[in-house]
Amino acid sequence: MIHPQVQQALDAMSTRTIQNVFLVACGGSSALMYPSKYLLDREAKSIASDLYSSNEFIHRNPATIGAHSLVILCSHSGNTPETVEAAKFARSKGALTVSLTHEPTSPLAEASEHVITYSYGPEAPAFETNYSIMYQLVVGLLSIKEENEKFHQLLHSLQSLQAVYDRAKSQFAERAKAFAAAHKDEKLIYTMASGANFGVAYSFAICILMEMQWIHSHAIHAGEYFHGPFEILDKNVPIILLLGLDETRPLEERALQFSKQYGEKLTVLDATEFDLSGVDEGLRGYIAPLVLNTVLRQFANELAEARNHPLSTRRYMWKVPY
Amino acid sequence: MIHPQVQQALDAMSTRTIQNVFLVACGGSSALMYPSKYLLDREAKSIASDLYSSNEFIHRNPATIGAHSLVILCSHSGNTPETVEAAKFARSKGALTVSLTHEPTSPLAEASEHVITYSYGPEAPAFETNYSIMYQLVVGLLSIKEENEKFHQLLHSLQSLQAVYDRAKSQFAERAKAFAAAHKDEKLIYTMASGANFGVAYSFAICILMEMQWIHSHAIHAGEYFHGPFEILDKNVPIILLLGLDETRPLEERALQFSKQYGEKLTVLDATEFDLSGVDEGLRGYIAPLVLNTVLRQFANELAEARNHPLSTRRYMWKVPY
Repeated sequence: MIHPQVQQALDAMSTRTIQNVFLVACGGSSALMYPSKYLLDREAKSIASDLYSSNEFIHRNPATIGAHSLVILCSHSGNTPETVEAAKFARSKGALTVSLTHEPTSPLAEASEHVITYSYGPEAPAFETNYSIMYQLVVGLLSIKEENEKFHQLLHSLQSLQAVYDRAKSQFAERAKAFAAAHKDEKLIYTMASGANFGVAYSFAICILMEMQWIHSHAIHAGEYFHGPFEILDKNVPIILLLGLDETRPLEERALQFSKQYGEKLTVLDATEFDLSGVDEGLRGYIAPLVLNTVLRQFANELAEARNHPLSTRRYMWKVPY
Repeated sequence: MIHPQVQQALDAMSTRTIQNVFLVACGGSSALMYPSKYLLDREAKSIASDLYSSNEFIHRNPATIGAHSLVILCSHSGNTPETVEAAKFARSKGALTVSLTHEPTSPLAEASEHVITYSYGPEAPAFETNYSIMYQLVVGLLSIKEENEKFHQLLHSLQSLQAVYDRAKSQFAERAKAFAAAHKDEKLIYTMASGANFGVAYSFAICILMEMQWIHSHAIHAGEYFHGPFEILDKNVPIILLLGLDETRPLEERALQFSKQYGEKLTVLDATEFDLSGVDEGLRGYIAPLVLNTVLRQFANELAEARNHPLSTRRYMWKVPY
């Protein structure tokens, strides 16, 4: 049932002492690791973890990287120079390197000891996609090292993920269109979330809005909101607020209450609306961001369509030297 | 020479095993802890660290909090409800709690085992202010637990900080005025930095621009810039870019090169211009963000003046329930 390349990586972990985990990638590939950091924080009794953008990781050079470190990296193309360098750097420190990529013969795959090729695209089964693989790796690690008992429930839950995605997408299809129609002329749209969901808000802000739509944005942490950012709110400021199912939901609910009272351009995606049949009750907080991310991708598609600005449009990325 | 309350906190640390450190606060008080996280990452050989907004910390409830944890908290008024709760939560887990505040009889001071009252305002000696106290605490910890040899150099360097601040402020006074004149009509200003300096960019974005000036903002990480945010750049997008002296400076320099080429509203604060006499060579990367922050405060003052929008203006904070 488990991906054979994930099993190989877990086998490698089981032969070593692992004291800390570094989650290392750039942009969207980094954002998809945030839920795993949340999970590690909540579940890991003795293994420390940190998440860094690849070049920050290399130059920051944390003193605890070494032979007892696991470094998980991700690059879709496997070509991101900073992430390839980070893999080499981690290996030079003696760390165990496990990379996720869509390209099995890429530079990242070559630079890493263990490679997991994930599936991608509208036809890819959710179980084999990047978010699912990340959870298989980190919960697998905790199963091996700390006797965490959630691994089998997790695998079982992830097997139901495709059906969850399909239901959520059809449930939110009309709302995605309505969002696009209402926001097509906006110059700035904030996103907001906390806990396991913050990475999804971050990804939508920097990859979808800023990169692919040239719309100003900023992923606001729902707890930090009340210590600065909320002063920007008025009736004309659009915010996309995510409400997940994890333990930080009260932070998101507080942000909702305030934003409803003083704002008029609020878009709420609430994970309590999802039909999560097949997903273990105790894991729903961890799974919600994956579903929120899938639904938000429809919002992105519809926005691009309504603005006549395809998601593939770039002016600098892959086009000019940087 | 060391603050007696800092010494008391260090004495308390020396009687206990400390396996991990949590840096817990909200908004600007959280931002001022980012350099300490950077320092801990680079210097701590065995002590793990994490930084969380207070309510995220409580609800995330990391599994590693316990009797071997040190939790450092900060609230200027000592009244921030989430941070007071976080202190109580940390104590309930058996952690050692040390709080920074300007108000020695505040709820946070009462809720914490050890309290350090820092100085504040234009007359406050830099050595006794919040950033300096944070470094005294974390380097003091590493001195006690890991025989880190930088503690005495640090104390010596921090004694020179006031003179560094004074020189930097007069050096940048004219540029602060010019910045304000050029940006007074902007609706959005991004900030950018990496490494030890990122918290300063974050603080300026969420506390100064969004909270105190109602200007849209977002602190972009200089490494992440090239994986999404840079696509927003054109000749009309204002960015404040910080260049520090720490090991991640190459990330900030790369962002500078690109932004100079494709943008026309770039404001650069480069720490190589500071006269850091009295600050140990090996500590200048850690000290630079403190000086950048001081200089940026002048930019804030001038911007508020030019816009006729005092930094004390609020529409929600302390005025309505939230």
